[in-house]
Amino acid sequence: MSKRNSKATAAKRAGPARVPATEGDDTRLTALDLPGAPLSPEMAAYFAKCEEKLGFVPNVLKAYAFDGAKLAAFAAMYNDLMLAPSGLSKLEREMIAVAVSAHNRCYYCLVAHGAAVRQLSGDPPLGELMVMNYRAARLSKRERAMLDFAVKLTAEPWQVEEDDREALRREGFTDRDIFDIAAVAAIFNMSNRVASATDMRPNSVYHGQAR
Amino acid sequence: MSKRNSKATAAKRAGPARVPATEGDDTRLTALDLPGAPLSPEMAAYFAKCEEKLGFVPNVLKAYAFDGAKLAAFAAMYNDLMLAPSGLSKLEREMIAVAVSAHNRCYYCLVAHGAAVRQLSGDPPLGELMVMNYRAARLSKRERAMLDFAVKLTAEPWQVEEDDREALRREGFTDRDIFDIAAVAAIFNMSNRVASATDMRPNSVYHGQAR
Amino acid sequence: MSKRNSKATAAKRAGPARVPATEGDDTRLTALDLPGAPLSPEMAAYFAKCEEKLGFVPNVLKAYAFDGAKLAAFAAMYNDLMLAPSGLSKLEREMIAVAVSAHNRCYYCLVAHGAAVRQLSGDPPLGELMVMNYRAARLSKRERAMLDFAVKLTAEPWQVEEDDREALRREGFTDRDIFDIAAVAAIFNMSNRVASATDMRPNSVYHGQAR
Amino acid sequence: MSKRNSKATAAKRAGPARVPATEGDDTRLTALDLPGAPLSPEMAAYFAKCEEKLGFVPNVLKAYAFDGAKLAAFAAMYNDLMLAPSGLSKLEREMIAVAVSAHNRCYYCLVAHGAAVRQLSGDPPLGELMVMNYRAARLSKRERAMLDFAVKLTAEPWQVEEDDREALRREGFTDRDIFDIAAVAAIFNMSNRVASATDMRPNSVYHGQAR
Amino acid sequence: MSKRNSKATAAKRAGPARVPATEGDDTRLTALDLPGAPLSPEMAAYFAKCEEKLGFVPNVLKAYAFDGAKLAAFAAMYNDLMLAPSGLSKLEREMIAVAVSAHNRCYYCLVAHGAAVRQLSGDPPLGELMVMNYRAARLSKRERAMLDFAVKLTAEPWQVEEDDREALRREGFTDRDIFDIAAVAAIFNMSNRVASATDMRPNSVYHGQAR
Amino acid sequence: MSKRNSKATAAKRAGPARVPATEGDDTRLTALDLPGAPLSPEMAAYFAKCEEKLGFVPNVLKAYAFDGAKLAAFAAMYNDLMLAPSGLSKLEREMIAVAVSAHNRCYYCLVAHGAAVRQLSGDPPLGELMVMNYRAARLSKRERAMLDFAVKLTAEPWQVEEDDREALRREGFTDRDIFDIAAVAAIFNMSNRVASATDMRPNSVYHGQAR
Repeated sequence: MSKRNSKATAAKRAGPARVPATEGDDTRLTALDLPGAPLSPEMAAYFAKCEEKLGFVPNVLKAYAFDGAKLAAFAAMYNDLMLAPSGLSKLEREMIAVAVSAHNRCYYCLVAHGAAVRQLSGDPPLGELMVMNYRAARLSKRERAMLDFAVKLTAEPWQVEEDDREALRREGFTDRDIFDIAAVAAIFNMSNRVASATDMRPNSVYHGQAR
Repeated sequence: MSKRNSKATAAKRAGPARVPATEGDDTRLTALDLPGAPLSPEMAAYFAKCEEKLGFVPNVLKAYAFDGAKLAAFAAMYNDLMLAPSGLSKLEREMIAVAVSAHNRCYYCLVAHGAAVRQLSGDPPLGELMVMNYRAARLSKRERAMLDFAVKLTAEPWQVEEDDREALRREGFTDRDIFDIAAVAAIFNMSNRVASATDMRPNSVYHGQAR
Repeated sequence: MSKRNSKATAAKRAGPARVPATEGDDTRLTALDLPGAPLSPEMAAYFAKCEEKLGFVPNVLKAYAFDGAKLAAFAAMYNDLMLAPSGLSKLEREMIAVAVSAHNRCYYCLVAHGAAVRQLSGDPPLGELMVMNYRAARLSKRERAMLDFAVKLTAEPWQVEEDDREALRREGFTDRDIFDIAAVAAIFNMSNRVASATDMRPNSVYHGQAR
Repeated sequence: MSKRNSKATAAKRAGPARVPATEGDDTRLTALDLPGAPLSPEMAAYFAKCEEKLGFVPNVLKAYAFDGAKLAAFAAMYNDLMLAPSGLSKLEREMIAVAVSAHNRCYYCLVAHGAAVRQLSGDPPLGELMVMNYRAARLSKRERAMLDFAVKLTAEPWQVEEDDREALRREGFTDRDIFDIAAVAAIFNMSNRVASATDMRPNSVYHGQAR
Repeated sequence: MSKRNSKATAAKRAGPARVPATEGDDTRLTALDLPGAPLSPEMAAYFAKCEEKLGFVPNVLKAYAFDGAKLAAFAAMYNDLMLAPSGLSKLEREMIAVAVSAHNRCYYCLVAHGAAVRQLSGDPPLGELMVMNYRAARLSKRERAMLDFAVKLTAEPWQVEEDDREALRREGFTDRDIFDIAAVAAIFNMSNRVASATDMRPNSVYHGQAR
Repeated sequence: MSKRNSKATAAKRAGPARVPATEGDDTRLTALDLPGAPLSPEMAAYFAKCEEKLGFVPNVLKAYAFDGAKLAAFAAMYNDLMLAPSGLSKLEREMIAVAVSAHNRCYYCLVAHGAAVRQLSGDPPLGELMVMNYRAARLSKRERAMLDFAVKLTAEPWQVEEDDREALRREGFTDRDIFDIAAVAAIFNMSNRVASATDMRPNSVYHGQAR
């Protein structure tokens, strides 16, 4: 049960000053020491577009920049799955991203995509719910079925069977939608593991976005 | 990778308006229909003090208010463990609260005590780290040992043994401190379950606190 | 497949004498070295009442006695939940206590509350069943639903939802009963962890009670 | 915290009479309806010997009696592992039996072999500890290593490797002893599953033995 | 995505020669150093029959040969369960053996009984499916129910109840069949653990059988 | 313990003919009904190259062919990670692929990449070991550390920390190698889930390759 204090007072009460939790997150992006590499013209343009539209380049892209082929392949797959036309809205795709990342407790992805859910929904607590426990959110039956599938696929993929696909069809998802739910859940199962394996740090700017 | 948009634009893009995620959280506090009961003079005074110091009465207290004995017992135990003098700072106790609640994925406690970590530390991302994965935070050895003990005690209490207590003593914790770490972890293992069993909803004001 | 022998013969066959399993359990109550504190008049009276009614003071109370506020708060909460009027019988509450403690494999609570189930039911094997596997007991549908809820809440509280509450309502439990089931399960999730964290030892007298 | 009452008083307080927990356990041994078969002379002699030495025929033997080959094979394997000469004492073998059965929460085996630990040790609480949580018992390093191996082999056999065998050798176990520890843990992993699959009920006489 | 190369070319590309994965598997059968013992006439005859019918003596039998009583008991139980008349076909029993061993990730049993499924079915990919994930196989409802029961009994025997037996009866299994499903699943839960505890190695000849 | 019989005899003994386990696997590649799409020239050339070098187009590529962008992105990422120069040999990358897919029990990936391990190593049983339990294989310390990291990252990515990276460095892996181990483990965590979500079937030709 928190108190109404200024940050300064609070910090004083907490004893010796702590190093800020985000210290170094924008300069030392991962725990691996990987030599830099010059960006290809395409990737340089992509980074410039990120700067223009987002105000920064997401650290995950910089973390892949040591190898042009890896960066290009990741960006192509990511942008197709999360931004290309789909029967799933962008918000739905970000909700999947966060619910999957919450199961895998991936700090990078929860920070970056929690911010995306807050922004796309215009409803900051919805982002918190996806991070904390999507089962506690008041979701439509469609949303709940979508997230249940994505999280089961994350937790025990060997148990996913026709009954699970049928449950999605009953909520109106097409087979193409099912592919997209699976593919979004799957790419975050990939990214969560690259991020955890390398201790990837999210851009500190995400924390305050769309609060 | 989120965009720089106003909330209004974002909401428009997301399609049909969603009901806000916190709708009803301040009026229907749990999923149980429990008859109200008049507060005892002591509890009325306590609620008034909450209003004065926090600006609101935490929903967990209101949720217990149907039964005066339960409310008084919970408040006494809670306030002793979280606010009375201890070898653990209040921030440390709140960090335990959140790390335990993250293991148990308890929405109520993560929202309320995540806010407390943000306030007491004056470092909002520290709150996020406790919610998302305390292992990704840059903690002192003391803090890490404290949280490892609390989370092991949460996840598999039957495995906690003398070696675990010794690991705390090596970081300078006294036996009394060990009791306090255990007791704080334990009360949140209790509260997480009361909250989950009743679908307890956090006061919506917590979401924006100390961001 | 055991044999009909006197204890003496059995002990002889087992080779070198073992230290009795309860050695020290009544004198060194936990693994923590906590300075004693004088009991408040209320708590001294409570301990005297325990001596009178039970013949001994449960070790859990003595273990909390190093700090008067903690002892008073625990005793108040415990006695309210386990002994005050409720839609649940005292036996039902003790059955929850043991089934929860069995999931958490808590030695202290299984010994103390296993004895309580034996006494309250007048049926010693019922106590064994709660300790070993409540699913193997021939329970009423009401009892089974109650224990299934309590154990699910123990094992994976993040999965408890409206369907689980509805399953209780279908067996005739009121919302107040649901609160009490949750609260009893929850306090044992707390006590199990305090006991495991401190290696709390049960009074040796429990072992032979109501056999 | 149980009360000093006669069973009669306790039963009265508990409300409507419950059917005793062991009702039918000595007459309907499993949930399967299997046609009886005449015992072979060897098995008839074995049953007679059980009656003479134990005072009863363990239900597990009667449960196998529908098929002479299965009964003979089980009895031969069981008696060799549990009763033949070994570097492990009979008590040690029974301790393994109970710790394994506790992991698998097997009612039949916990009742029958919990009684055996009580009898062979002459120390009833040692039986309770094996049932409830062997880690809470004050064991010799040899006993602890033995049970840790047996329980790991039960819980995650795919993780057992040379390091685990070496840990046993360090406590003085020979390779033959290691085989015996493994074989005893293994046969109870078998019996636990036959008992659970068939809802096998233990002879009611076990409950009161060696208390 | 593999290439069409001769083994020689492939090995060359893979860099420094590796020791073959089966090296020593036919000579050092387990990680335990157990003194040999002369075979009884019955067991000598049994080994000779294995040589004649299979072309070799399965290593599991040789691994038990250090102790005549253990070998005889294991052979008797194994042959009764897997080869004697039963409502389950031999193929069905081997399918259970492999699905259970896959849950337990037992190398010995997966190699030996995977070969048996390939041979008895005349369908090598069926053996692969049992090893990899039986849920991905196109099974009859009867087969699926049988394997679901066997694997649940393996993974969480404490959860097996009347509903599970009823699910088998609905597919036409008799109570005797249920016993046999349970007993086959159970003996492999035993054998998997003896094999894992001792690092038992399968005869190398199994790998190429019935491909 | 299998018998030396012709497939024909075996099939006869097994009772009514079963449908072959691979029936339909080469024609109905997934459980989703997704409209085909014309291949881009690049992808058409890629498919032709697969036909030429492998003799077939892997079903995973055909399964992605309904959408040119998804196919191109997957192929680019896959080929970079598995075929481009790396400090990891191609065999090592395939060993990771199979060990990860074994944890996730992914039928498609185990069949396709099990074949790759057999081919690249020239040692078929090595492929079996990766499928069944990599811990049972006689691996170099380097290989074991690599697979332990990959499987921990698969099973509990939230627990991967600096100690895990250090364990790889101690075996001589560079930071770039660590990235590659993580990225290969991660892409299979993705592919396993796409395959399981869609019931993707492996080309039947894989089963017999390099046996």
